[in-house]
Amino acid sequence: MQVVKAEDFSLKREEADVYEMERTTVKEILANVQSEGDAAVRSYTARFDGVELDDFRIPEALYQEAYSQVTEEFLEALRAAIANIRRYHEAQKRPSWMLPDEEGSVLGQIIRPLKRVGVYVPGGRAAYPSSVLMNVIPAQVAGVPQIVLVTPPDREGNLNPGVLVAIKELGITEAYRIGGAQAVGALAYGTETIGAVDKIVGPGNIYVALAKQAVFGQVAIDMIAGPSEILVIADDSADPDYVAADMLSQAEHDPMAAAICVTPSADLAGLVAKSLAEQLEKLPRREIAEESLRNYGSIVVTKNLDEAIALSNRLAPEHLELMIEDANSYLGRIENAGAIFLGRYSSEPVGDYFAGPNHVLPTSGTARFSSPLNVDDFVKKSSVIQYGKQALFNHGDKIITLAESEGLQAHANAIRIRLEKEGGRN
Amino acid sequence: MQVVKAEDFSLKREEADVYEMERTTVKEILANVQSEGDAAVRSYTARFDGVELDDFRIPEALYQEAYSQVTEEFLEALRAAIANIRRYHEAQKRPSWMLPDEEGSVLGQIIRPLKRVGVYVPGGRAAYPSSVLMNVIPAQVAGVPQIVLVTPPDREGNLNPGVLVAIKELGITEAYRIGGAQAVGALAYGTETIGAVDKIVGPGNIYVALAKQAVFGQVAIDMIAGPSEILVIADDSADPDYVAADMLSQAEHDPMAAAICVTPSADLAGLVAKSLAEQLEKLPRREIAEESLRNYGSIVVTKNLDEAIALSNRLAPEHLELMIEDANSYLGRIENAGAIFLGRYSSEPVGDYFAGPNHVLPTSGTARFSSPLNVDDFVKKSSVIQYGKQALFNHGDKIITLAESEGLQAHANAIRIRLEKEGGRN
Repeated sequence: MQVVKAEDFSLKREEADVYEMERTTVKEILANVQSEGDAAVRSYTARFDGVELDDFRIPEALYQEAYSQVTEEFLEALRAAIANIRRYHEAQKRPSWMLPDEEGSVLGQIIRPLKRVGVYVPGGRAAYPSSVLMNVIPAQVAGVPQIVLVTPPDREGNLNPGVLVAIKELGITEAYRIGGAQAVGALAYGTETIGAVDKIVGPGNIYVALAKQAVFGQVAIDMIAGPSEILVIADDSADPDYVAADMLSQAEHDPMAAAICVTPSADLAGLVAKSLAEQLEKLPRREIAEESLRNYGSIVVTKNLDEAIALSNRLAPEHLELMIEDANSYLGRIENAGAIFLGRYSSEPVGDYFAGPNHVLPTSGTARFSSPLNVDDFVKKSSVIQYGKQALFNHGDKIITLAESEGLQAHANAIRIRLEKEGGRN
Repeated sequence: MQVVKAEDFSLKREEADVYEMERTTVKEILANVQSEGDAAVRSYTARFDGVELDDFRIPEALYQEAYSQVTEEFLEALRAAIANIRRYHEAQKRPSWMLPDEEGSVLGQIIRPLKRVGVYVPGGRAAYPSSVLMNVIPAQVAGVPQIVLVTPPDREGNLNPGVLVAIKELGITEAYRIGGAQAVGALAYGTETIGAVDKIVGPGNIYVALAKQAVFGQVAIDMIAGPSEILVIADDSADPDYVAADMLSQAEHDPMAAAICVTPSADLAGLVAKSLAEQLEKLPRREIAEESLRNYGSIVVTKNLDEAIALSNRLAPEHLELMIEDANSYLGRIENAGAIFLGRYSSEPVGDYFAGPNHVLPTSGTARFSSPLNVDDFVKKSSVIQYGKQALFNHGDKIITLAESEGLQAHANAIRIRLEKEGGRN
């Protein structure tokens, strides 16, 4: 764990495109799913997931079994998380609106849910119930009437019990045991048994990410997330153990994850480094966390808090913790961050699992222009123009002037013909 | 102009990727702009636009000259359009919000404008003042503090007077005479004289479109628009001349544009076909409109209005006109459309230029999941989590349970260490 100065700090991860081979495989899979439908999905599921499935739909028996495998505590925690996430996302909903005027015109904007959305949930070791919650609930709150979930089975056709219980608790009734590029293809193009969707969301491995990129345009997709990041701005009021623990909660995700502490206090920097080393010892995922800290972990000592905030704004972190005195008063100065955690009790896992805001956040500096997954990602808008007769007669000439200035005579004609026929012009 | 039945109708345009060569050119231009900065932009401007420029910034003298070239009527119409477009987009603004609770937590969502946005405005025959208005005003209403505009000069270094006046009327102070992929590169990567932006919007030719696709991820971009479309649902109450005139206002854009009338009335279908032929005669852009109608124009006769609406929902048109009795009452049944024009006075050019809603709309069926350009396209959201001490002690165990169910012990530790140190747990 190195301690560096702000002006020397940059967070650059390798981004060479090393996926040419995978890209070719994905293209082939998608083309086959598009032309062969269920048969292709079935065959890829046998080949990649090692299981022969007659029917992709998750059988009711698996859900029942899953409920017997999870604890009462898990169920209670999951239900509380669902309620919190729902409450937060409800606050993001917006009504359609209109703007009438005295000339008889009514302008407006209709906001409607997408009709059919596909949610990808990874399988195996990355099968996270929280991922089900965070991707499905915003779509439900938006009012999407058809939400279809896909998740790859293991070699026995089984699924993670926590994921199954999450699916059931959310009331999702259309869920399939398929994964990989073949599942993305089925969602994008549709098959005999799975209807095509309007948008695909949810994380996945490199094949899933490449498949989503490839079908983009045919359907909408969410962002392709990069490795996770946390930046903790801390001062002497921060508990170094808390800072270190929160950094490790990112570092354990992935050797590519970045955990950064930025502090004006050299004392705190030293204490955080010490605590990191101590806490690291006891971690089951120690090797991953260690590699992450070695490659992308840093404690940056700044001249003052201003410099710390400027550095954070430059990096635009996915997660930003402000463990500083009077943290609230700095909120207006944070320009770029996916999620902002204020104060000593706002540990990042609070947001990953429970508080309510989404854990699908912009990574790799894209918080400069991107937002957490939210209800707006599951709606579409239509403009409405009901132009009044009075308005057309008052302003028709202006519209004609503008159209003619662009050399678009048919545009001008469409107005002029109305003025002539109903206004006695000619 | 063919008259067809609804069940036989589909709107498929060629979409083969015939741009391999252009893609290679664009990649090279972008790479050179990234490494050589202004020198590369200057050299490409000399090569492609045929003009040597020392300073890219549009000189004040050009604006003054432009004002002397436009009419008083144009200026008045432009100013009225600006006021209308601003009023409509103001209604799209949303405040940041928070959600406090009794356990001491405050959750929220901060909505902030992007910091720096680049607007591309085409030159030559496609230099449209309305395009300046429609792309700049939503960014201004969102509160974007730095809006930079680029537009390619002609061989004398001159620009369209209407475009220049529009830039000035909107108060844009940073505008450059550059275009093509080199302008997109300058905006994405920055040069010595042009700072990099967070997002690039605005239409352009194929080089601009490919360049925007290539820099996507480095910066955000708006959608890449396809050819324009209009679908008019009309019944016997519609004036066939109005239907035909509105169809032609799309058809004159581009031989790839699609103008479709859908009607349950065979009588109206015939009258529209007749009026189209008559009005076409007099159009300056007749050849373009004729080719568009021949390739993609249709009058579709349906069994009834329900079938017409179902067809429209399936096609998800960019522009949809409802020239039917009691048009308003059908609004709730329109599932997919970029902009909806209601009634006999809501001619499509009213929306292109003047009424207020944006004319940058989703094309090629993407209204299924995309929206008109709007204020939301120029903001970013950050989640805010200020978790209360009480909340952490009440719910910490649930968060630990969820983290451990996913095998993420460091996540659990980040909560546990706080419960232990401050709650007497151990």
